[in-house]
Amino acid sequence: MKIEHILPADIERRSMEIIEDELGDIILPPDEKDIIKRVVHTSADFDYVRNLRFSPGAVEQALTALKSGCTIVTDTNMACMGISQPGLEKLGCRKVCFMADADVAAVAKAQGTTRAQASMDKAAALEGAVIVAVGNAPTALLRLRELIDAGKMKPALIIGVPVGFVNVVYAKETIMEAGVPYIVAKGRKGGSTIAAAICNALIYRLTRG
Amino acid sequence: MKIEHILPADIERRSMEIIEDELGDIILPPDEKDIIKRVVHTSADFDYVRNLRFSPGAVEQALTALKSGCTIVTDTNMACMGISQPGLEKLGCRKVCFMADADVAAVAKAQGTTRAQASMDKAAALEGAVIVAVGNAPTALLRLRELIDAGKMKPALIIGVPVGFVNVVYAKETIMEAGVPYIVAKGRKGGSTIAAAICNALIYRLTRG
Repeated sequence: MKIEHILPADIERRSMEIIEDELGDIILPPDEKDIIKRVVHTSADFDYVRNLRFSPGAVEQALTALKSGCTIVTDTNMACMGISQPGLEKLGCRKVCFMADADVAAVAKAQGTTRAQASMDKAAALEGAVIVAVGNAPTALLRLRELIDAGKMKPALIIGVPVGFVNVVYAKETIMEAGVPYIVAKGRKGGSTIAAAICNALIYRLTRG
Repeated sequence: MKIEHILPADIERRSMEIIEDELGDIILPPDEKDIIKRVVHTSADFDYVRNLRFSPGAVEQALTALKSGCTIVTDTNMACMGISQPGLEKLGCRKVCFMADADVAAVAKAQGTTRAQASMDKAAALEGAVIVAVGNAPTALLRLRELIDAGKMKPALIIGVPVGFVNVVYAKETIMEAGVPYIVAKGRKGGSTIAAAICNALIYRLTRG
């Protein structure tokens, strides 16, 4: 293995070429392609090529929300940190994570729920279009489903990519049947970097040349 | 797929049981076991069972550094965010990421290098024991190797887990031959969540019952 001499600015383009090469004969849906490739770029894991599932029209609905100056809510500060701030500023959008908020901790303690659940309750009170990106807590997805079923929330998009071994697969299936636009990584895999990568792919669609 | 009714506090323990079950007959080295399991827990990716490589004594040297109140330097704010602050406080350690610092941006621009390289130069000037955790930039690892070879830096541990397709495999191999303690994810995989998970596994070894 030798070093490839390349300018830092060209590394992402070259990476995407390598991913494209290795996809070989696999044809990705045009609307999903750059999102799937960015997730592979972020993980070096081609499993996401078959794991990522999009509800019909999900990408278009997400782009409409981003163009309207929406709020992206995450379930971890890591995912929030990973979302492009310059991109959000260009669009007049913002990102928030309520997990470390004192009021969320207090509600979770009082109700005997997780902070992830309480932070979704707080997200339901936001004004305007909301994209929810869940990279960690299946309980966040389960709570979102309850809020949707109760008519208390109608996210423009749910990015459902928590990672793990307990209730993660179930929580993702629950969101795929919630009747709202979704991008979900079926199975156990996902994480904060995956949630951020999907947000960034959507943002870059609107902000990069 | 049905829901598993479990208290939030028990989810991590149950996840580790599932990972243990699925490892089957694979025997992990006792000193590495909890680190490997935490990375699998963070990624749901059993590839790390064979990808993670430890230099002899790496874990012991890292624990010595953590007991001495070391600094953990990361190459992304995401990884830095993911490292347990309560755990660090118990140990009298701290975490830093220089990537967003104005002086690092200025040096990188002036020298035509990446901010990751310039942030490693800044790390080389730190007092006391340093653990460097690289989850993103292969150029950070290549710069570390140069600093080590020049006698300008002697990290207590390098966590070398950048993810990607360009120079990532090469940079990891370079670190495995640098003559310093390392934990490396061989191959393309890794990321900020993996870097943070390895840090946390080491921290928890010393701070959890």
